[in-house]
Amino acid sequence: LIEQLRAAIRDFKLKHQLDHVVVVNLASAEAVPDVGARHNTLSDFEQLLSENHKALVTPSMAAAYAALREGCSYINFTPSPGAAIPGLLELAKQQKLPHYGNDGKTGETLVKTTLAPMFAMRNLHVMSWEGFNMLGNGDGKTLNNPDNRQAKLENKTRVLDNILGYSPHSDVAINYVPSLGDWKTAWDLIHFKGFLDVPMTLQFTWQGCDSILAAPLVLDMVRFAEYAYRQHEVGPMHHLACFFKNPIEVEDMSLFVQFEALGTLHVTLMHPPPPQTSRSAAKQTHHRFL
Amino acid sequence: LIEQLRAAIRDFKLKHQLDHVVVVNLASAEAVPDVGARHNTLSDFEQLLSENHKALVTPSMAAAYAALREGCSYINFTPSPGAAIPGLLELAKQQKLPHYGNDGKTGETLVKTTLAPMFAMRNLHVMSWEGFNMLGNGDGKTLNNPDNRQAKLENKTRVLDNILGYSPHSDVAINYVPSLGDWKTAWDLIHFKGFLDVPMTLQFTWQGCDSILAAPLVLDMVRFAEYAYRQHEVGPMHHLACFFKNPIEVEDMSLFVQFEALGTLHVTLMHPPPPQTSRSAAKQTHHRFL
Amino acid sequence: LIEQLRAAIRDFKLKHQLDHVVVVNLASAEAVPDVGARHNTLSDFEQLLSENHKALVTPSMAAAYAALREGCSYINFTPSPGAAIPGLLELAKQQKLPHYGNDGKTGETLVKTTLAPMFAMRNLHVMSWEGFNMLGNGDGKTLNNPDNRQAKLENKTRVLDNILGYSPHSDVAINYVPSLGDWKTAWDLIHFKGFLDVPMTLQFTWQGCDSILAAPLVLDMVRFAEYAYRQHEVGPMHHLACFFKNPIEVEDMSLFVQFEALGTLHVTLMHPPPPQTSRSAAKQTHHRFL
Amino acid sequence: LIEQLRAAIRDFKLKHQLDHVVVVNLASAEAVPDVGARHNTLSDFEQLLSENHKALVTPSMAAAYAALREGCSYINFTPSPGAAIPGLLELAKQQKLPHYGNDGKTGETLVKTTLAPMFAMRNLHVMSWEGFNMLGNGDGKTLNNPDNRQAKLENKTRVLDNILGYSPHSDVAINYVPSLGDWKTAWDLIHFKGFLDVPMTLQFTWQGCDSILAAPLVLDMVRFAEYAYRQHEVGPMHHLACFFKNPIEVEDMSLFVQFEALGTLHVTLMHPPPPQTSRSAAKQTHHRFL
Repeated sequence: LIEQLRAAIRDFKLKHQLDHVVVVNLASAEAVPDVGARHNTLSDFEQLLSENHKALVTPSMAAAYAALREGCSYINFTPSPGAAIPGLLELAKQQKLPHYGNDGKTGETLVKTTLAPMFAMRNLHVMSWEGFNMLGNGDGKTLNNPDNRQAKLENKTRVLDNILGYSPHSDVAINYVPSLGDWKTAWDLIHFKGFLDVPMTLQFTWQGCDSILAAPLVLDMVRFAEYAYRQHEVGPMHHLACFFKNPIEVEDMSLFVQFEALGTLHVTLMHPPPPQTSRSAAKQTHHRFL
Repeated sequence: LIEQLRAAIRDFKLKHQLDHVVVVNLASAEAVPDVGARHNTLSDFEQLLSENHKALVTPSMAAAYAALREGCSYINFTPSPGAAIPGLLELAKQQKLPHYGNDGKTGETLVKTTLAPMFAMRNLHVMSWEGFNMLGNGDGKTLNNPDNRQAKLENKTRVLDNILGYSPHSDVAINYVPSLGDWKTAWDLIHFKGFLDVPMTLQFTWQGCDSILAAPLVLDMVRFAEYAYRQHEVGPMHHLACFFKNPIEVEDMSLFVQFEALGTLHVTLMHPPPPQTSRSAAKQTHHRFL
Repeated sequence: LIEQLRAAIRDFKLKHQLDHVVVVNLASAEAVPDVGARHNTLSDFEQLLSENHKALVTPSMAAAYAALREGCSYINFTPSPGAAIPGLLELAKQQKLPHYGNDGKTGETLVKTTLAPMFAMRNLHVMSWEGFNMLGNGDGKTLNNPDNRQAKLENKTRVLDNILGYSPHSDVAINYVPSLGDWKTAWDLIHFKGFLDVPMTLQFTWQGCDSILAAPLVLDMVRFAEYAYRQHEVGPMHHLACFFKNPIEVEDMSLFVQFEALGTLHVTLMHPPPPQTSRSAAKQTHHRFL
Repeated sequence: LIEQLRAAIRDFKLKHQLDHVVVVNLASAEAVPDVGARHNTLSDFEQLLSENHKALVTPSMAAAYAALREGCSYINFTPSPGAAIPGLLELAKQQKLPHYGNDGKTGETLVKTTLAPMFAMRNLHVMSWEGFNMLGNGDGKTLNNPDNRQAKLENKTRVLDNILGYSPHSDVAINYVPSLGDWKTAWDLIHFKGFLDVPMTLQFTWQGCDSILAAPLVLDMVRFAEYAYRQHEVGPMHHLACFFKNPIEVEDMSLFVQFEALGTLHVTLMHPPPPQTSRSAAKQTHHRFL
């Protein structure tokens, strides 16, 4: 399998006469594997590969391995592990490749990481934050399986604890509603206490088209990854944290803090980033934060 | 009138044996006055006072004048002008007093200045942002008068243009609904375009108790003002911008940018701010940003 | 003008070789005219026509007059007066023609007349019912003019008083939001009291496509009108009340009571109504209520 | 156990010197039992009692049995079986007692059975009706257990199929959110198709206090039951269907059809019903439907 994946990348590179390839994982969520001691080093992981150990080597890991072995930058837009296991982080460093993930932040969690800091800044105590997500595309069908949605749900609730500094009651549901198709609809209820413990509420309803929200982030990140490769950056691209629910090695989950990191990088590099896309967050960065 | 106001402040200070008094304007919104050339200098303004010119000297201006003349720090929590006219800014400087305003940010605009940056950061183009506010307290009754709500509405829509960099269609309604009492209920519809111009929506409903949201901000700002006075700070306290819809001399309307200014001040002063209140945003500042 | 309208109807009838024509008013709302003594009889009204009295003879009246004079059945889907003035009711009777209106019920008012009876049946006291409507089509543009929306707003609030038996606080706003196009978006807040005067709320958001909601009603009513004509029915077709915000000569505003009237008619006639359209409410009537 | 329950009823009756007692089941939902052949006759059921067969005789059945044996009218406000098994229906008839249930209709299902007929009447095809319920009282805690909520969920979804005549996609969630206490908060999304299959949506948010909504219904039903007993009515009181999610032996789930049955009874009896409570639906019946 690994060799097939590597050959496909080589063929693609050759056919389009490319200097560098960025591999992006956009598959549906996998069941959460049991990541443990045998993922801890590259040689352990390669041992698993040689054993063809399907329970411990998930498709996202196999694809990430193939990408890094072929010298590709790598982006993981899904909640699956991809390159985010110690053995593959080691491989990326050894291959001197930039990479990042996990789990693109396009809807409910985007709004959550935007709104939650407001409650912290005003010292409004969030008692409960309940979220209901509905969608009807293939992703929704896969997430209807409790095994497959576990990783995503953890990413969705963990951000609150991080931003608020405590754990409010928080259930997140993902329901498969076929008629909605690609139109992710989410309703969140935030029940919070103010001065003298008076309870209040904020509710929001998000109606967004998942693919349309994801596509420009993927395009931008491919450019960011290619740029990082040219700058000889190696390992996790922490400055891309704002695009992910579970950004590798980044602690602060506030959208704003993460977005400033994206701006700061550009200052450090001392030359304005040239991505051409009009839908790019980088452009925004310029005008607003630099 | 001015003398009555000044005498009341002196009596209060004497009776409670205070070193320093902070005056806070918490009255209902005034009709918007015609602020012009005759408000440009302190001497012009005092000329208006001596003429007892009621059309050009509103109650909020008169009270701000009395406060500053009595050596008080001054906070304006309302959309009325208060000290935010050139003649009174001059007086504050001359009296070496700190002050700030205008228009406390407690509900819909708080959420708006939190959410709007998200659309900018993701380059999601806001086509329309429509807001409907309802409340049933005395403030609601006053704002039911179109003259009185004009200043507030301007503060509520202006923040979007500032944060987004363009002017979406935006109407803001404030309706007096007696049965709601102090429970401000606001519904906002945000109609935005993503990649390939696909339209999407975000709606939110805010149900907050206005007094409960305002009170802790007022308490904190009285402490901040007293602290600034002890530090010999003079003029507008820009670091308090995050508490206001229309912060004096501050350009950036993003809640996050404003909140960081509050944190930065404390770093500059090089001694951790000691406000005692557990509901204080300053405390939050420490743990999160410093 | 009248002669032009009548000629257009005659040409249409001739060109398509029709036995009978049903005229439907689907124009935008007019400014509310001053309906008074001079509209009370047919001869008074014809006197106004002969004077070419534009302030008292609105376009909807003129078109209704032309339709009835040409022997057409007539439906008024708008809040404009159309045939609902005494002089034209007289003309319809004299011409032995069926007709009905006013103001098609397709969105917020449809939901309102469905939900309001629930509060009455449970003796839940509605304190406030606030409605905010937004739309961006030509109809929205016309209704942005306070004169034009007056009739519509009256129709929208009056239904509550009728169903509940008392007048809750109720403001209805109609805002023109161009980006929404034909997608009428309405948000209603219902603030009500239960046992021991405990306040509670129900909110709803309606996102409907106006034309798509109106079109099948118009098609069905054309069939109902043609059927009534064949049955030699004369005057207001009260059994069509459920399709209108302000049904002529019908008191009860509950959607359910009105819908039963539609079913009852069919029983009375003793032959099942044969409308062919699959989108017809008549079909529903059969299976559910008869 | 049965004897203890019967003794408690006798003591209560004696102590308060009552002519007649109405027993109301207001306990939390039971796990759904396996109702089958051994519940089919009274003698079978009494055999189960004599065997002390705890898996097949649930607490609600035992209490209903005790009530009917003591000559009490019986109301079951819960989703548990209570008297709604063949053996106990037989006992009620034999004892000449009126009774009714199951599962009081106070919140989301009340709104659902009000709104669903509107979609049927307009031939708007409901593709999906998704409901999310949250509450934090003891009832919520019990329903957090999947076994206990099964009966309630079935009652909540079944009403749609009945009213619409087909089965839309419909998931109903009940989440235990402690901070909400008795304030049941429900959000429903209705995704429907109109003319030419254009998809549209209606959402509602219900914020109701469960006990406050239930209490007046219980008071009214105790009066209705006592009245029925005096009128020598025997068996299920079908005219009380409008108060229940799963009314015994009633087919039509539309709130309006059920409410008319309540009014019709009163006409039949030919004397206006004298319930004294100002919060009684009966009073409403008079003015509106009779």
